[in-house]
Amino acid sequence: MDKDKKIFIFDSTLRDGAQAQGISFSVTDKLKIAAKLDELGVSYIEAGNPGSNPKDLQFFARAKDELKFSTAKLCAFGSTRRPGIRAQDDDNLKALIAAGVDALTIFGKAWPFHVREIIKTTLNENLLMIKDSITYLKSLGKEVIFDAEHFFDGYKADPDYAVAVLRTARDAGADWLVLCDTNGGMLPLETHQIVAGLVREEGLKNLGIHCHNDAGTAVANSLVAVQAGVRQVQGTFTGFGERCGNANLSTIIADLGLKLGCHSIPGDKMDNLCAAYRYICEISNIFPNEREPYVGNCAFAHKGGMHIDGVRKNAASFEHVSPAAIGNERRILASEVSGRSTIQMIINKIDPSVSRDAPETQRILNHIKEKEFYGYQYEGAEHSLELLVRKELGRFKHSFEIVDYKVISERQSVAVPGSLPKSRIMAFVRIAVDGVVEEVGVSDEIGPVNALDKALRKALHQFYKPISQMHLADYKVRVINGENATEAKVRVLIESTDGVTTWTTIGLSDNIIEASLQALVDSYEYCLLSNNGAIRNAACQN
Amino acid sequence: MDKDKKIFIFDSTLRDGAQAQGISFSVTDKLKIAAKLDELGVSYIEAGNPGSNPKDLQFFARAKDELKFSTAKLCAFGSTRRPGIRAQDDDNLKALIAAGVDALTIFGKAWPFHVREIIKTTLNENLLMIKDSITYLKSLGKEVIFDAEHFFDGYKADPDYAVAVLRTARDAGADWLVLCDTNGGMLPLETHQIVAGLVREEGLKNLGIHCHNDAGTAVANSLVAVQAGVRQVQGTFTGFGERCGNANLSTIIADLGLKLGCHSIPGDKMDNLCAAYRYICEISNIFPNEREPYVGNCAFAHKGGMHIDGVRKNAASFEHVSPAAIGNERRILASEVSGRSTIQMIINKIDPSVSRDAPETQRILNHIKEKEFYGYQYEGAEHSLELLVRKELGRFKHSFEIVDYKVISERQSVAVPGSLPKSRIMAFVRIAVDGVVEEVGVSDEIGPVNALDKALRKALHQFYKPISQMHLADYKVRVINGENATEAKVRVLIESTDGVTTWTTIGLSDNIIEASLQALVDSYEYCLLSNNGAIRNAACQN
Repeated sequence: MDKDKKIFIFDSTLRDGAQAQGISFSVTDKLKIAAKLDELGVSYIEAGNPGSNPKDLQFFARAKDELKFSTAKLCAFGSTRRPGIRAQDDDNLKALIAAGVDALTIFGKAWPFHVREIIKTTLNENLLMIKDSITYLKSLGKEVIFDAEHFFDGYKADPDYAVAVLRTARDAGADWLVLCDTNGGMLPLETHQIVAGLVREEGLKNLGIHCHNDAGTAVANSLVAVQAGVRQVQGTFTGFGERCGNANLSTIIADLGLKLGCHSIPGDKMDNLCAAYRYICEISNIFPNEREPYVGNCAFAHKGGMHIDGVRKNAASFEHVSPAAIGNERRILASEVSGRSTIQMIINKIDPSVSRDAPETQRILNHIKEKEFYGYQYEGAEHSLELLVRKELGRFKHSFEIVDYKVISERQSVAVPGSLPKSRIMAFVRIAVDGVVEEVGVSDEIGPVNALDKALRKALHQFYKPISQMHLADYKVRVINGENATEAKVRVLIESTDGVTTWTTIGLSDNIIEASLQALVDSYEYCLLSNNGAIRNAACQN
Repeated sequence: MDKDKKIFIFDSTLRDGAQAQGISFSVTDKLKIAAKLDELGVSYIEAGNPGSNPKDLQFFARAKDELKFSTAKLCAFGSTRRPGIRAQDDDNLKALIAAGVDALTIFGKAWPFHVREIIKTTLNENLLMIKDSITYLKSLGKEVIFDAEHFFDGYKADPDYAVAVLRTARDAGADWLVLCDTNGGMLPLETHQIVAGLVREEGLKNLGIHCHNDAGTAVANSLVAVQAGVRQVQGTFTGFGERCGNANLSTIIADLGLKLGCHSIPGDKMDNLCAAYRYICEISNIFPNEREPYVGNCAFAHKGGMHIDGVRKNAASFEHVSPAAIGNERRILASEVSGRSTIQMIINKIDPSVSRDAPETQRILNHIKEKEFYGYQYEGAEHSLELLVRKELGRFKHSFEIVDYKVISERQSVAVPGSLPKSRIMAFVRIAVDGVVEEVGVSDEIGPVNALDKALRKALHQFYKPISQMHLADYKVRVINGENATEAKVRVLIESTDGVTTWTTIGLSDNIIEASLQALVDSYEYCLLSNNGAIRNAACQN
């Protein structure tokens, strides 16, 4: 493979990705994601299927006004004409053209089984459908990306026909011939062998690859296809898509750039990968996969004691690339498995003078083990751990205390027949700061924890103005099943941010309200601590 | 590759898997998972690292009494002796032997960088450490699996040394030589090339492979290694492990059996894969990955309209294998994208006489689109969708109605100084069944939704005894961010079970309590419906 050859990244998050369970994009979501992908430097953004989903035309209309791309081309997706009609009379092709973009993807069948059983036409008519549709779109001056659907299944069943499909598309003027593993069942060695054959024996050029992950090898299949000569890689940025998903482009871009020395997105955008991944997950309303290669929160998180020890000596000992290359960070997880080395790093962050053998170190370790035995888990809650260590080192002073609280959630019976029942939530909290008690009551429409947070924040604001700069970014609840059901505990993780930094805290209790409150209290304490030791408002210091 | 050759599956869920963020096994958890893996027919179960984690010895002691394996061998894991001492004096090896199992995994360094920089010894002493440790364990009659840590990084830096490490282990009597991609950065073609070279040029036998997923290709690397002649595959059953995780054995077992024609677990156990995956996730207290190849909830879920249409005609059109082969099921997801075809299938399940063009069909479609526009998503909540369709078809009668409710969560201030503050939750619910109103109040220690469920169930039980056979299996909450924050809605999914079947319902509201209540009400209504149209208790029918 020529290492300097450019690989074109074709992102279908907004089309194939929309076919994943749980994904439902608004037009605004789509505009935001498209802008982010362009900013990252992908080559093509496939953003809708106007023939099967009329709402997509609204997107393309707004995109024309609102999106100014610097590197990417916007694409619409549709099928070849239906059997037995002229291309210019086909409603699907009309909708595709109505999208008003310069690059169009059309898919055609490459597997005789599908031609006969699913679209129920002849092998010859299928070739004509491909030829006519491409010829027509090319006559309108469009760039045409031809997706050979089920190419690999087709090739394995009838190689001559599958290759005839590609040749037909090429001869009709298609700019790209994309080999699709639509059912996602291919494995890498066979994929490599087939693609290499097409390049070597058939002399086909401008090939693309489109893989699904049903055998767990979509990324690998895409990479071996590139190594065999393919120049366009289709996938979705987060790996979401129909069934098990599409080839994950965030992984592929990193593998291509950092492992195979290929150019795909510009080199100076590579360290935006991690932020782009989190942004696209956020807009797609999906939880980022913590274990995602390169961009996941755990991708450079070390838990095993020997691994942590190794990374402290030399990061390359347990990291295949530098986390900074994709804008990620190393994390050291605290747990029973990791032992003294990790805790030592956290202790020394707070007080560099405390040695590995100091009695404080042993006391802190014992305390953490006790808490972990009870069900706490500090791996995802480094900032609660920092507070715990500070407390043990005598480097912590509470900024406030909860005196009591009450939260009421209710729906009243309908007084006037026919009117809607009224539901509401009320929270009352009393806090004490240096003996001064502040009581706050709020009403809320969201939920008990939200109401409690609102009341607590309002009370704290009387004493500490910086509190207004922070907000909760994420709230996770986990029920931990004990040996028997009555021992079940609830573990709450809260991620907070002031727009610059982010911190995570933990709460644990039999009672979800209590667990949430613990995590909230830690979050506020940490915020006030970071703001230079809890600066009280001038007005309150009297 | 000889297709009839047996591939040995080596599962490290309980050792390498325990190094994943968020994983924390109790001894009982480990016993349960080991029993399940044996039942499935894996060859080796690596269950702990007694040298670095003394708690693991407790597991091995209990395992000896409580586990009776039919196919698997239980393994303990540790490192070769430390530099400069005799193998019999090494604490780690002593702990390993104390585990009292017949098969032991020991890892040794195969990368000169690690030998020099991390364990800080000479290349020659490292070879002696490997030789002495294996010779000693073999003299005790143990089966020794030698993990060549960082083998691939070592091979790329200094192939002669990496091969010398393998030869030393073989000559000392190791039963298996396992090639580890410890940092997880390998790609498939290079992996294949290196392994094929070892088999062909070095004549090495009894090779194993141990991959991590840092480049997104752990499954692929494992498969190509098998295709190059490796006979043991190490990984974790769910793919969990340090950083991005280990090679996912649930995927690999399916790929080996269904794609490469290899024997790994017994053929008649293959359709237990899916249930084993869910069981191990459950015991590990992790959410199953819906998109997991073969075993995920979405692996055979179809959402795109064309895909659903294709699968209705012939399942092979969009499924690479039959879901039944691994004990999974086909699911048809309802959504805007899927359109009429899917809804039609659900309508006809309830009333086969309603045609595609009937006015009811259009009315139901419109209603679903309206609800989806508001934020409902029926893809994961097929049973709420069924209730909705039944209502539209006039095939539904409420079994009960909520009149009103009130939930109070509070913590009272401490009356007696020094005593712990007391927190509690109380719920009051009134329901009406055919004009009869039942009021129930309960106290609870878990949370507001739990309290509400408890009260509701208690009230319903007065009318419907079958309700006691069902319980909630899962409860998921998702905040859907609207265009501005004040529009945020909460979507709740509840999975319920009566031990035989499972059903999922949805609730949506600005208010989490209301959303939860909606999903609860749907769940109870569905339960009563399935019990032959809400059989009222005899005593209540007077």
